[in-house]
Amino acid sequence: MSSLNKKFPRLLPEPIRKGMKVADLIDTSFKAYNGGRLAEACRLFTQKMIAGNGTVGMSLTGALTPAGLGRAAIVPLMKAGFVDWIISTGANLYHDLHYGLGMHLYAGSPFLNDVDLRRDGVIRIYDVLFDYDVLLDTDAFVRQVIQGSEFQHTMATDEFHYLLGKYVYEREKKLKIKETSVLSAAYQYGVPIFTSSPGDSSIGMNVAAMALRDSKLLIDVNRDVNQTAAIVYAAKSSGSTSSVFILGGGSPKNFMLQTEPQIQEVMGIEERGHDYFLQCTDARPDTGGLSGATPGEAVSWGKIDPENLPDCVVCYADSTITLPLITAYALSKAAPRKLKRLYTKRDALYADLRAQYFKHGKVEKIEHRTDLSKPKRGRSGRSVVGTSRNGKTT
Amino acid sequence: MSSLNKKFPRLLPEPIRKGMKVADLIDTSFKAYNGGRLAEACRLFTQKMIAGNGTVGMSLTGALTPAGLGRAAIVPLMKAGFVDWIISTGANLYHDLHYGLGMHLYAGSPFLNDVDLRRDGVIRIYDVLFDYDVLLDTDAFVRQVIQGSEFQHTMATDEFHYLLGKYVYEREKKLKIKETSVLSAAYQYGVPIFTSSPGDSSIGMNVAAMALRDSKLLIDVNRDVNQTAAIVYAAKSSGSTSSVFILGGGSPKNFMLQTEPQIQEVMGIEERGHDYFLQCTDARPDTGGLSGATPGEAVSWGKIDPENLPDCVVCYADSTITLPLITAYALSKAAPRKLKRLYTKRDALYADLRAQYFKHGKVEKIEHRTDLSKPKRGRSGRSVVGTSRNGKTT
Amino acid sequence: MSSLNKKFPRLLPEPIRKGMKVADLIDTSFKAYNGGRLAEACRLFTQKMIAGNGTVGMSLTGALTPAGLGRAAIVPLMKAGFVDWIISTGANLYHDLHYGLGMHLYAGSPFLNDVDLRRDGVIRIYDVLFDYDVLLDTDAFVRQVIQGSEFQHTMATDEFHYLLGKYVYEREKKLKIKETSVLSAAYQYGVPIFTSSPGDSSIGMNVAAMALRDSKLLIDVNRDVNQTAAIVYAAKSSGSTSSVFILGGGSPKNFMLQTEPQIQEVMGIEERGHDYFLQCTDARPDTGGLSGATPGEAVSWGKIDPENLPDCVVCYADSTITLPLITAYALSKAAPRKLKRLYTKRDALYADLRAQYFKHGKVEKIEHRTDLSKPKRGRSGRSVVGTSRNGKTT
Amino acid sequence: MSSLNKKFPRLLPEPIRKGMKVADLIDTSFKAYNGGRLAEACRLFTQKMIAGNGTVGMSLTGALTPAGLGRAAIVPLMKAGFVDWIISTGANLYHDLHYGLGMHLYAGSPFLNDVDLRRDGVIRIYDVLFDYDVLLDTDAFVRQVIQGSEFQHTMATDEFHYLLGKYVYEREKKLKIKETSVLSAAYQYGVPIFTSSPGDSSIGMNVAAMALRDSKLLIDVNRDVNQTAAIVYAAKSSGSTSSVFILGGGSPKNFMLQTEPQIQEVMGIEERGHDYFLQCTDARPDTGGLSGATPGEAVSWGKIDPENLPDCVVCYADSTITLPLITAYALSKAAPRKLKRLYTKRDALYADLRAQYFKHGKVEKIEHRTDLSKPKRGRSGRSVVGTSRNGKTT
Repeated sequence: MSSLNKKFPRLLPEPIRKGMKVADLIDTSFKAYNGGRLAEACRLFTQKMIAGNGTVGMSLTGALTPAGLGRAAIVPLMKAGFVDWIISTGANLYHDLHYGLGMHLYAGSPFLNDVDLRRDGVIRIYDVLFDYDVLLDTDAFVRQVIQGSEFQHTMATDEFHYLLGKYVYEREKKLKIKETSVLSAAYQYGVPIFTSSPGDSSIGMNVAAMALRDSKLLIDVNRDVNQTAAIVYAAKSSGSTSSVFILGGGSPKNFMLQTEPQIQEVMGIEERGHDYFLQCTDARPDTGGLSGATPGEAVSWGKIDPENLPDCVVCYADSTITLPLITAYALSKAAPRKLKRLYTKRDALYADLRAQYFKHGKVEKIEHRTDLSKPKRGRSGRSVVGTSRNGKTT
Repeated sequence: MSSLNKKFPRLLPEPIRKGMKVADLIDTSFKAYNGGRLAEACRLFTQKMIAGNGTVGMSLTGALTPAGLGRAAIVPLMKAGFVDWIISTGANLYHDLHYGLGMHLYAGSPFLNDVDLRRDGVIRIYDVLFDYDVLLDTDAFVRQVIQGSEFQHTMATDEFHYLLGKYVYEREKKLKIKETSVLSAAYQYGVPIFTSSPGDSSIGMNVAAMALRDSKLLIDVNRDVNQTAAIVYAAKSSGSTSSVFILGGGSPKNFMLQTEPQIQEVMGIEERGHDYFLQCTDARPDTGGLSGATPGEAVSWGKIDPENLPDCVVCYADSTITLPLITAYALSKAAPRKLKRLYTKRDALYADLRAQYFKHGKVEKIEHRTDLSKPKRGRSGRSVVGTSRNGKTT
Repeated sequence: MSSLNKKFPRLLPEPIRKGMKVADLIDTSFKAYNGGRLAEACRLFTQKMIAGNGTVGMSLTGALTPAGLGRAAIVPLMKAGFVDWIISTGANLYHDLHYGLGMHLYAGSPFLNDVDLRRDGVIRIYDVLFDYDVLLDTDAFVRQVIQGSEFQHTMATDEFHYLLGKYVYEREKKLKIKETSVLSAAYQYGVPIFTSSPGDSSIGMNVAAMALRDSKLLIDVNRDVNQTAAIVYAAKSSGSTSSVFILGGGSPKNFMLQTEPQIQEVMGIEERGHDYFLQCTDARPDTGGLSGATPGEAVSWGKIDPENLPDCVVCYADSTITLPLITAYALSKAAPRKLKRLYTKRDALYADLRAQYFKHGKVEKIEHRTDLSKPKRGRSGRSVVGTSRNGKTT
Repeated sequence: MSSLNKKFPRLLPEPIRKGMKVADLIDTSFKAYNGGRLAEACRLFTQKMIAGNGTVGMSLTGALTPAGLGRAAIVPLMKAGFVDWIISTGANLYHDLHYGLGMHLYAGSPFLNDVDLRRDGVIRIYDVLFDYDVLLDTDAFVRQVIQGSEFQHTMATDEFHYLLGKYVYEREKKLKIKETSVLSAAYQYGVPIFTSSPGDSSIGMNVAAMALRDSKLLIDVNRDVNQTAAIVYAAKSSGSTSSVFILGGGSPKNFMLQTEPQIQEVMGIEERGHDYFLQCTDARPDTGGLSGATPGEAVSWGKIDPENLPDCVVCYADSTITLPLITAYALSKAAPRKLKRLYTKRDALYADLRAQYFKHGKVEKIEHRTDLSKPKRGRSGRSVVGTSRNGKTT
C-alpha cells in the first residue's frame, strides 16, 4: 500500500445543504478538477496573495465590465484593498464608462439576428445589448473631457486613467450613483490602472481622432512599461510579495508578467519572479499562445519564482463564474486591507527602479542571471493548495 | 432609440458582500456569458424542471463520483426528489462503489509523474488519487455480489443497479456511513439508474469475466432502450413535463435524448419532444459531435419541443463548478418533492409503452410525423431565462 | 550555454510552395503546438503503429460518418490494412448506413432556424442536413434486415455488425456504388467493429423495438468486453504491438483502453499496456473526464506501457481536419499491409484469452501486479516524435 | 420531401489517395464541421479576399513566429502579395528577430521540468525551446539598433517596424539567409506592420529601458489608430474590398476590426464595414470576449458589412495547422499579386482620411449612422462557402 494518506487529504465532501454560504460551499464541496482549482484559487488569494500586505496586480481581459463585473466584483475588491494595481484592456475601461455615466446596458440573448440589430442600432456583446447611442454618447464624453488642459501632454496610462476617473467620479456624484465604475473607484482608492494597448479601444480611438485636431494627449508607452516594473520591484525589494491575478489572458497577462523579465533580463537586476500566480481562463496551453501559457512555462522565463510553483493555480472556467465566487469568498474570509494607494507613490517607485537600472543595466548584452540557489527572503509555510503537487508517492 | 428596455432587464448587478449565500450571489451577480447561463440554469431547474411534479432525468459523464460529487450533490438532489431517473457512464457507478464501500480517495495533484505512480500502485484520475487496491477490492466486491442467485438472469441495467445498490446500502449500514453512494441512494429512493454502455467500465468488465465462468448475468440492452422511452412517454402522456439535466455529454446524453425519437420515429407515436434541456459541458457545437450539439439541433430531430427552445440552457463550464452551485441553489429555493420512485413502476410503464407501440408501430417504413401546429397540453408562462431569446429589437 | 542542439532538432521550416503534397507540407512546416503534434501523429501512425504488423484499433466518436469521413478516410485506411479493428458509437454506424444505402446528405450550414427545419422535416447535424425520410427509410432497412434468421440469437456486436455489413455490401452492389460504407468495408475486409453502447443509436433503437415483437436479437455485451480484450491479448502475447488510434473520446475511447485492465486487473494476467496511443480530440484533461485523459494518466492505470509514453501523441484539433491529413500522409508514406481479417479469427482469439483467464483469474481479490522492471520483448528504436520528451536539458 | 438538393451540394467526398496535393485534399474531403470551415476559409481567401485586388489585413496572435510560421507561411504570403498589412503582437515580432538574426530555436517538448529549465537557462514556449542567450542577444540587438539617429523621434509602429526591418534585412544579407523574417520581408515588400500594444513585448521593454537613458524613441499610438483606419478607408472608398484574416484573437483582432468604428462612429464617415472576415481560433463566443466574438456580433457594431455575413468564416482550430494549409492552398490556386507596398503610401492615405474626418467629424456627439438600405458599390456573386447559410429549407 502506498502512503497517499500521509501526503494528501482524503477526498470526502460534505453533502450540500439548503441556504449554504458561498465560502462554505467552496470549502466543503469543490474538491477536484476545475472545481478543486477554484477552491485553491480562493485560498491562494485569501491566504497567500493578500496576506502580509503583499502587492496584488489584476489583469482584465474579456468583456468583464459589460457583464457588470466591474460593479459586482472589481470595485468591491478594490475597495477592500485586495487589488493594488490593474492592467486592463481598453475595452473594459471604455464599457466601464457606460456604468459610471449612468447609461443602460441590458441582459439580452446571444441568439438574436445581428443584421436586424445593426439596422435597429443595437450593439451586441454576446448576450449584452445596448443602444448605439451609448457608444456615441460615451465617445462624446471622452472627447470633451480630454480637451481639458490637464490632458494636454504626453502621459502614461495610469495618469490618463486617473484623470479620466476623476471626471467619472464627478459624474457619478452628480447622478447620485456610487461604486459603479472601476475608473471612478481607481481614482478614489489610488489604484493605478494601466492598459497594454492604449490605442486599442474606443477610448484610444477618440484620443486618436482628437490628435488630428489640436489635442496634445499622447500615451507614453515607455513609462507604462517601466512604471509597472517599478511597482513589482518595489514589492519584491521590500521583502514583500508580488502576485498576479489574471482574468482571461491576452496582452494584459503578458504585460503584467513581463515586469519580471524587464527587471531581470533587460535591466540586469537580480530577481526571482512573481510570487503567486492565479489565472481564470479558457485558454489551454497546447495552442502555444501566451494566454494559455502555464505558470510552469512562466518559471522558465523567470516570470514566476520556481519555489512557489506548487501554489500557482489555473482554473479553466469563465470569469463570469469564477470572479464572483472568488470575490465572495475573499470578502467573507479576510478583513479589508489598508489601501496601498500606489498611484500616489508612482514617481517615487519609478525613481527607485530607474536608479537600480543605472546601477545594473547596460546597452550591450547583459550577462547576468539570477542565482536561484541563493537563500531568499522569508515567505514560506504550508501550501494552500492542500497538497504538495510534487509529492512523491512512494 | 430602440425599445431594449421593454424587452430585456437592465444589467446592473449588486456589489458582492461579505457572507453572501450561494443563491443570493447567483441571483444578484451572475448576469452574462456563462455566468448568466448558470443563473438561468438555476432558475430553469428550480422554477420549471422540478415544478408541477415534472419528471427529471439526469445524465452523468465525466468522472463526477471520483470528484466526490455523488456524495456532495447527486445524492442530496435524489433525496430531495429533484432527480427522478439517471443515465450514467459505468465509470461513475464503479467509482461510486469506492465511496459506498468506505474506501479512501485523495485530493491529489495533476502534476505527478505517472510512471512513478504506476510503479507505486497509485491510480490517477486527473488530480484524484487512490491505491490500486481500491480497484482490486472493488472488483472482488462486484464479482462476489453478482454470484448471488438474484443476479443469475438477463436483466436491464436499472434492475442490475437496483440489485447492486442493495448490497452497497447494506455495506454502508454495516460501516455506519450514509448518503455517500449514488447506487445506495438510488436503491433507497427508487431512482432507476441506467447505463448506455453496460460493458464499458470495471463493473461491466467483472460481469464479463464472470460470464466466462458460470454466471448467467447478461444485460438486456433492448429493455434499457424501451424502459427509458417508457419513463419519458409516461411523463408526457400524463400531461406533465419531461426534462433532461445533462452533465457533460457523451453516450448518456444521447441515450437520454433518443427516448423521444424512439417514441416518435421508431414507434410511430405522436410526441413533441422533451420539455426542458439543461446542459453543463465544455463540448462546443462546432466539432459536430453529439456532446456539444445544441438544444436547437435537438429540435430538428424532434428531441426537444420547439416551443420551449427559448428556455433551454447550455452552460459551458466544468460540472465540478456548476453542479454544486445548481444544487445549492435548488435546495435553497425549492421545497423537497415527494419521491416518484419510478423504479417501482417500471413494469407498468413498460407495458404502457409496449401497448402504444403495438397501436402505432410497424416493421415497414413509418410515415408518421408529429403535427406541431396542433395545440398542445398546458405548461406555459413566463420564461425563466429573463428574456425572450427571440425578442425582436425594433 | 545549454546543449539543446544535442537533444532536439533545430526548428527551421521550409517556406511553403505552390502545389505541395500533403505529406511534404506536414513534414516540412508542421513544427510546434498542435501542428507539431499532428506531424508526430502522422509519423507515429506510419512509422510505429502500422510497422512490424502491429495491431491497430481505432475508436470513432463524434459524427464522423455524417461528415463523409467514412468514405473519405476510414474505408481507405481499412482497405490499406492500416486499421485492424474498430470501436464506434452506434451513431457513426447508423449514419454510415445512409451512405451504404445510397441516400443523400447535404453540406449545409450551422446557421439555420431549427424550428423551421423541424417543421419542414429536415434533420441537422451541425452543418450536415438531410431529410427526415433518410431516418425513416434507414430505420425500416434495419428492422427488415434483422428479421432474418441469422439475427435470431444473442450475439456480440462484432457479429451483429458483420451480418449487417453483409446486407449493406449487397445493397451497394445492387446500387453499383462501392467503398462508401464502413460497415460494408468491414464485412469485406474482415475488420471487427464493436460498439460500447449497443442500445445507444437508432440501430439499437430499432433492435429494441423489434424485441417488443418476436425478435430474438440481443447483444451479448460480455462477449464484446472479452472479445476486445482477446484481440489486444493476441497482439501482445505474440510479441507484436497493440496501438490505439482514438478519434474524439467518449465511451469508445474507454472501451478500447479498458482492454488492458481487463487483462491485468480483472483477469490477473501479466501485461504492460498498449504500446502506442494516438488521439485527436478537443477534450482537455483539466475537466477530469476520460475523453480528455492523457496517455500519462492511462499509464497510471496500466492501460499504456510506460516505456512508450514519450511516443504517445494527443493532437487537440477537430477530427474532420486531422483524420484526412493523417490518412493522406499514411497512404503516401507506407505501403498497404496484408489484411489481418481479425473477424475470421474471433473464436480462436476468444478461446485463447479464456484459457489464460482460467489460469490466472479468480473470483476473490487478485493480488497480482505487473512487474515493470522485468525486461520486455523487442520493439524499440528511435522516437518518432523527433525528441526525447523527457530529455534533460543540462 | 424537402428541397435540400436545390439549395445545398450533396455531401459525398472522394476517397483519399496516395500522394495527394494539399489543395486537392481540401477540396475533395473537407466537407463538414471545422474541416468544412477550413475548406471554406481556403476558398474565401483565394476566391474573394485576394480577388479583384482587394486589401487584406492579417492579425497575428499566439506564438506563431516561434513555431516557424513566419518563415513557413507568413513570408510566402507577403511575397505573393496576398497580405497587404499586418497587426501583430509584439511577441511575434520579437521572436521573429531570432530567425532574422540567425539564432537557433529547437523543436522540443511540452513535458519538461520548468524548474530545471530555469536553472539551466532554457526558455520554453510550450514545446519550443531556446537558450536564454537568445533573449539576451536579441535584446542587445534591439537596444543597439534603436540608438541610431533615425529612431530618435516619436513615430507610429509601422514606421518603427519598417526601420527595424531594414536592420534585420541587412543582417540577413550578411548571414546569407533569406525569406526567414517577417520584419525583413515587410521592409522589402513595403507591408506595414503595426502592433496594438507597443509596450507589451521584449521589443517594447528594451525601448522603454533605453528611454530611461537618452533615447527619444516614443511610439505614437494615435497615428497607429488613424493610420490603420486610413488603410481600410482607402480600400473601401476606392470601391475595392477590405478583408481581415485573423489568426487567434486578442488585441490585434480588435485593433484590426475597430478601424471601421473609427471611420463610422468616431469620425462620422459613412461606411458599411469590412467585406470579408476569416478567423482561425480556439476562442469560443460564449465566454463573451472579443477573441471569440463572431462575425455576426461584429455586424452589430458596424465592423462587418451585413451583406457579406454569409461568406464569413470562423475555423476553430490551431493556427499551426490551419495557416500552413490555407497558405499551401492559396499559393497553389492563385497567381501572385502585384505588391501594394502600402507602406510607401502611408502619408497620402493618412492625409486622405484626415481630410474626410474634418469634413464629417466633430467633438460633440455624432448623430450619423450608415444607411444600409442605400445601394452599395459592386462586389457580389456566388457565395464561396458552397451554401447560402441563410437558405430557407422549405
